[in-house]
Amino acid sequence: MKMPTDAQIDEPSWLTLSPRSGETLRAALERTLREAIRAGALREGVRLPSSRVLAESLGVSRGVVRDAYGQLEAQGFLVIRPRVAPVVATVPRPETPRRDSKPVAPVPRYDLTPTTPDVTLFPLNRWLSTAQQVARRASVVALDYGESRGERTLRAALADHLGRTRGVIAEPEQIVIVQGTAQAVDLLVRVLARRGASRVAVEDPSHTTNHKRIRAFGLEVAGQPVDANGIVVAGLDADAVLVTPAHQFPTGSVLSGERRRQLLAWAGESGGVIVEDDYDAEFRYDREPVRALQGIAPEQVVQLGTVSKTLVPALRLGWLVAPPDLVDEVEQTKLLLDIFSPTLDQRTLAEFLTRGHYDRHVRRARSIYRRRRDRLLAALHAHLPELPVEGVAAGVHFLLGLPPGVSDTAIADDANRSRITLTPLSDFRLTTADAGGLVIGYGRLHESSVEAATRALADVIRAHM
Amino acid sequence: MKMPTDAQIDEPSWLTLSPRSGETLRAALERTLREAIRAGALREGVRLPSSRVLAESLGVSRGVVRDAYGQLEAQGFLVIRPRVAPVVATVPRPETPRRDSKPVAPVPRYDLTPTTPDVTLFPLNRWLSTAQQVARRASVVALDYGESRGERTLRAALADHLGRTRGVIAEPEQIVIVQGTAQAVDLLVRVLARRGASRVAVEDPSHTTNHKRIRAFGLEVAGQPVDANGIVVAGLDADAVLVTPAHQFPTGSVLSGERRRQLLAWAGESGGVIVEDDYDAEFRYDREPVRALQGIAPEQVVQLGTVSKTLVPALRLGWLVAPPDLVDEVEQTKLLLDIFSPTLDQRTLAEFLTRGHYDRHVRRARSIYRRRRDRLLAALHAHLPELPVEGVAAGVHFLLGLPPGVSDTAIADDANRSRITLTPLSDFRLTTADAGGLVIGYGRLHESSVEAATRALADVIRAHM
Repeated sequence: MKMPTDAQIDEPSWLTLSPRSGETLRAALERTLREAIRAGALREGVRLPSSRVLAESLGVSRGVVRDAYGQLEAQGFLVIRPRVAPVVATVPRPETPRRDSKPVAPVPRYDLTPTTPDVTLFPLNRWLSTAQQVARRASVVALDYGESRGERTLRAALADHLGRTRGVIAEPEQIVIVQGTAQAVDLLVRVLARRGASRVAVEDPSHTTNHKRIRAFGLEVAGQPVDANGIVVAGLDADAVLVTPAHQFPTGSVLSGERRRQLLAWAGESGGVIVEDDYDAEFRYDREPVRALQGIAPEQVVQLGTVSKTLVPALRLGWLVAPPDLVDEVEQTKLLLDIFSPTLDQRTLAEFLTRGHYDRHVRRARSIYRRRRDRLLAALHAHLPELPVEGVAAGVHFLLGLPPGVSDTAIADDANRSRITLTPLSDFRLTTADAGGLVIGYGRLHESSVEAATRALADVIRAHM
Repeated sequence: MKMPTDAQIDEPSWLTLSPRSGETLRAALERTLREAIRAGALREGVRLPSSRVLAESLGVSRGVVRDAYGQLEAQGFLVIRPRVAPVVATVPRPETPRRDSKPVAPVPRYDLTPTTPDVTLFPLNRWLSTAQQVARRASVVALDYGESRGERTLRAALADHLGRTRGVIAEPEQIVIVQGTAQAVDLLVRVLARRGASRVAVEDPSHTTNHKRIRAFGLEVAGQPVDANGIVVAGLDADAVLVTPAHQFPTGSVLSGERRRQLLAWAGESGGVIVEDDYDAEFRYDREPVRALQGIAPEQVVQLGTVSKTLVPALRLGWLVAPPDLVDEVEQTKLLLDIFSPTLDQRTLAEFLTRGHYDRHVRRARSIYRRRRDRLLAALHAHLPELPVEGVAAGVHFLLGLPPGVSDTAIADDANRSRITLTPLSDFRLTTADAGGLVIGYGRLHESSVEAATRALADVIRAHM
């Protein structure tokens, strides 16, 4: 790594010299620097300016600084070498709040996390070169504050793309660009709460962080059961409902035609809002995915989408298609949340969409995931033939059913101890239910590991049956 | 632009054929496509798959698709050319919600917006090449879901940088990366509200969007007056106070030593939280900036920072330095808001900091802004010698005082009509006050325009005096 030269280092300009009575300038500077190092303002490895530069900025002679630096070196606070900026040494400091945000988990042998794609498939080089082209071509306006609704080019590209691939009916003005589906849900709950909503229904089971997002605004979370036909509409009583019609998470069911009609009828009669998380719609392996609900009832449905599954989560790019009577309030709320989403990534995604890179990548990923899924199902059939696999052929996960009385959390705990990462169905439930299951993702499971992973998993499961 | 070839186009797979009684397949397909085009799901300019591909996906003969396409072409719904995918034509559609999020404003002759830097100074090529290096070197983990607290490399680089340049005392574990200062404020208000806060004090005048962020969670906004010594601490009665000590926005004053001591004493006695928006601290022209308050009382101060002024707003990168007893809750809230901030930009900023690119850019920008400021002050002194310039030599704006009784909003309206963008002080006030003023930014004003801009501005102002 090339080190910055002295001229490139901004001095610690907040340092001021306030000599105590009888204290020399040298002693005052030495004390001040030592206190700053001890307190942790000047941290280990930080480079200080040369004696010339610091002397100038403090208005003292160079000899004063040189002497103070020499004393601090002798005391072990600085490391000084010729022709190089003095560097703060390792100093034991009084009790610092050192805690890591996550305990470091051991690297899993087999990672069956159900919520992530295979990030190694991402065409990183193409993304980077597209970003370069987009940035070099862009006017300087692209570097300034942007529109809260998002970049017009991306909203136009998404309106075309979502219409063509998902049957969504939307003008670019109805689309608001957000930081992934997470921000879309948080934002929408906020808007609904302001409009007087008190109760949001969710699928039970479903992502529990979304339940927290709803409760954070004081709204009640109402769980609706899910069966092989998707969410059960009967008994639905809420101001809004958050659904995953294309591929329910985590059960893997698809909302049936009959249930779609019931859900739309509910929205029409009650005035409730349908929030359609168009989860995994791009990855269906056995047949064409059904049309987005939004395309059937654009006045009653808010559609959410993200590139976290189709490209990578690290981009934090998502969108929200809102009915015309809601979109201005959504935009105003985005302004309060973070003003707007990063511009260059938005423009790069627009280019990815219009040049066909996005479709091409989705097709490639789809065929890879399909192969992995087929292999994994075959291996499970061979090693655990008595356990039913639930969920349609879609996405990057399925549900492995367990016999009644077998604890999915106990199996998941054991699996984690054997460094196999998977999630028990119970983790996603609002209500305790009899039937447990294991939510198994193959997004991160390479084909070459399928056989060994299945054997290891079967060993863990058999010990519980 | 290279058009995608047919094989790269995902078919509109949600289209299904449901022939009505007596309707042929051809007629059904023609009707279905026409309805999709009329409704706006298949939008103008969208390319449809070839007759071969669509026939296959629908399970009909190629002739059926070809005939339907031909009919739609004859009716003006499609444009068909040999060897190219059929394209949806411009079709008048029934009343669409076409509204732009912003009315298009005329391009200003002189842009004196006080809140933005000169984005043309941003070392875009260096940023892009650094991003490439960082991305190519990163492990695939960098593409997956990241830590809500932010990338460890960036938090470590910021702890060093903020300690050295601002005297901030923080472990990397106390730093949470956010989407600009806006998200930091929104997030903090949310945390404070959950902890039972009911009242947040702000400087009067100050950014009004922050007032909205506070009120959005049902908290009261309490304005504290600002004078030449910064916020007035006497009478402060709130659970938290949001301040800009380094360079008050918009008056340009700096919090005096006496007021700093009063504010810290207030926090110590009342247990109130000081939220220090370390606004413009990097750009001080006459002397070294004072140390961040956080470095004096790290247990009582939350420090906020952003690259929106030092680099560019479009990056949406900011940070929040929280006391140890608050940081876990801040991280949990970031998880609810949007899980984490985009990873590659975080890593690029870390590299910018550790390689000295950041300091180098700030120094260069500082000297350019100082020159612009000096020129503009000289021009104002020549053309409007009777109007006082308020605010210390810092940042990218100052306040031009107006005599009592002269309306700053009327002048700003007139200026805008003459395509001079500036903001009246009244726009930032919570309470109406006698003294108006004009908040004038020079971030976007090139030196060559200073003389002409000042003349034009003087003409507008003189008409009101």
